[in-house]
Amino acid sequence: MKTKQVKAYGTESAEADLKALQIDRREALEKDIEIDILYCGVCHSDLHFARNDWGMTQYPVVPGHEIVGKITKVGDKVTKHKVGDIVAVGCLVDSCRTCNNCKNDLEQYCPEWVGTYGGYDKHLETNTHGGYSETIVVDEAFVLSVPEHLDLAGVAPVLCAGITTWSPLRFWNVNENSKVAVVGLGGLGHMAIKLAHALGAHVTLFSRSPNKIADAKALGAHDVVISTDEAQMEKAMGQFDLILDTVPYEHDFNPYISTLNTNGTLVILGYLGPLDPPLVTVPMIMGRKSLAGSLIGGIAETQELLDFCGKHNITSEIEVINMQDINTAYERMLKSDVKYRFVIDMKSLKN
Amino acid sequence: MKTKQVKAYGTESAEADLKALQIDRREALEKDIEIDILYCGVCHSDLHFARNDWGMTQYPVVPGHEIVGKITKVGDKVTKHKVGDIVAVGCLVDSCRTCNNCKNDLEQYCPEWVGTYGGYDKHLETNTHGGYSETIVVDEAFVLSVPEHLDLAGVAPVLCAGITTWSPLRFWNVNENSKVAVVGLGGLGHMAIKLAHALGAHVTLFSRSPNKIADAKALGAHDVVISTDEAQMEKAMGQFDLILDTVPYEHDFNPYISTLNTNGTLVILGYLGPLDPPLVTVPMIMGRKSLAGSLIGGIAETQELLDFCGKHNITSEIEVINMQDINTAYERMLKSDVKYRFVIDMKSLKN
Repeated sequence: MKTKQVKAYGTESAEADLKALQIDRREALEKDIEIDILYCGVCHSDLHFARNDWGMTQYPVVPGHEIVGKITKVGDKVTKHKVGDIVAVGCLVDSCRTCNNCKNDLEQYCPEWVGTYGGYDKHLETNTHGGYSETIVVDEAFVLSVPEHLDLAGVAPVLCAGITTWSPLRFWNVNENSKVAVVGLGGLGHMAIKLAHALGAHVTLFSRSPNKIADAKALGAHDVVISTDEAQMEKAMGQFDLILDTVPYEHDFNPYISTLNTNGTLVILGYLGPLDPPLVTVPMIMGRKSLAGSLIGGIAETQELLDFCGKHNITSEIEVINMQDINTAYERMLKSDVKYRFVIDMKSLKN
Repeated sequence: MKTKQVKAYGTESAEADLKALQIDRREALEKDIEIDILYCGVCHSDLHFARNDWGMTQYPVVPGHEIVGKITKVGDKVTKHKVGDIVAVGCLVDSCRTCNNCKNDLEQYCPEWVGTYGGYDKHLETNTHGGYSETIVVDEAFVLSVPEHLDLAGVAPVLCAGITTWSPLRFWNVNENSKVAVVGLGGLGHMAIKLAHALGAHVTLFSRSPNKIADAKALGAHDVVISTDEAQMEKAMGQFDLILDTVPYEHDFNPYISTLNTNGTLVILGYLGPLDPPLVTVPMIMGRKSLAGSLIGGIAETQELLDFCGKHNITSEIEVINMQDINTAYERMLKSDVKYRFVIDMKSLKN
């Protein structure tokens, strides 16, 4: 396998800061696309993975799965894209392509899906490396077209924060008759508001802090319910068809279940772990309410979202940083000090 | 309000056995139907309510909400049924009829639905009294037609155990392509197997005891998974589109979530309370799986079920008892010593 070395940013241990590294990329195979990375969004998962918070990281790790770039080379059998196209790569770079989930455009639920970083690269027989790098080489089946009139830095977070909220909005058929609520106003939450609004739904933000009200409304929320205010929570009971809970830490889901309408669903997008305090079943039984989980989205669905963003001129609200600022950005993310997503200008890596 | 006294069986306190009582029934109003009760099924809720297990019982209580009988009188404006018809009454005898749930044939989720017993009888300004009695008077909107060729004693449990499992089978679109599992083989579980089988689904029973295998297969299960056998549970992973969990006591739902296929739903029908051990979200997120609750069914849906039972010749497996045996029957229910539902032959009350 022919390879070339490219510049990247990553870490060799859970304790160390990210720093400049050299990594191998394969030369484009016949179905491959080589992409010069222009922008890469910074997802909470990047930080968790770099620091081995989930106990599964193999080092060195090069994070980044919100990638926008320009094609510099295509393999002989590539038909979907051409050199010079602006394209994107999200959280997946491969899957088995034969299981029922793959056949149903649900590659994100394929038991053998390959993550953009931290997956197993069958070509190089090593870990996959993500978008904190100069280039990436990806099979055309996992490369997405970007509407070129959009702000390309703002597109990057659509590839993870965007699709994570879009997929449940679509699966649960949100439309102009829907009442949608979003719990938490961060990277995912702000995209959820924009997308639900663009689908025509009535959108409410649940937030603990009144100082989020103005921002939420500017993003497209029709209403904000302060979740620590019992009177407001009482008034919100039985209202929502779909709630997207984007909060990444342990919290009580029961008060939100009570705000679901009959047949409503609360979708957990952010929190991985046991429910504490425990879920109480009575309000679910008394209104046929559901609690569900959802993970990113499939390739076709991600393309659908990018096209929708193109049509509705939707991008993420971002703060552009240089690659060298990543460790500071991680610290600020831990304090929720970002509106609403850091995006790395990858030109800075060439310096 | 003109009333008449009828014989019934009930209790005046949580501690006392059930005994013969006299209760008032209203004379049929213009939309009312008076029913001579032939059979009444014995539901676990009857026992919980009689003993005030839910802390909401007002005494005296006359349980019973799986009622089959013959019409003896109809009000002047009744159009749906006539004297002599065999009819049924389930868990509901009224609702507000104006809320969205009522308008959508979901009376069971109306905030003002009136239970067949333990509800508020606006005519008599007292508690409603259930089917452990000679007669009942019910508005025609809540009286159902019974296919008269069926075994009428076996029809009674269809009104609660049956509809409780039918409603989720229909809401989650079970058909000949579905893989359905049922947790627990009792009153609800055995109806779930029969109904899912008749809808054409592949049906699996989860049970702790191998001695349920033969019975489950006789009822229509294609497969039985012994839930205490780790190898069998492992093999069942990712299989089911819908799981109906009928177990009425605290247990771990997580192993069953793992046996759901992508987009699958586990519906809690039996257990009211907090989930302990706690639900873990990761397997739900990694396959867009849902946990839901469901409560009995609406009036139109219950009629649909009775018609379906008529067409497919489905009734409950029962043990017929006399009214005087009810206290023994409750004790046997607590030991799961019934296949699969007690039904009271109400002729015995006239003795």
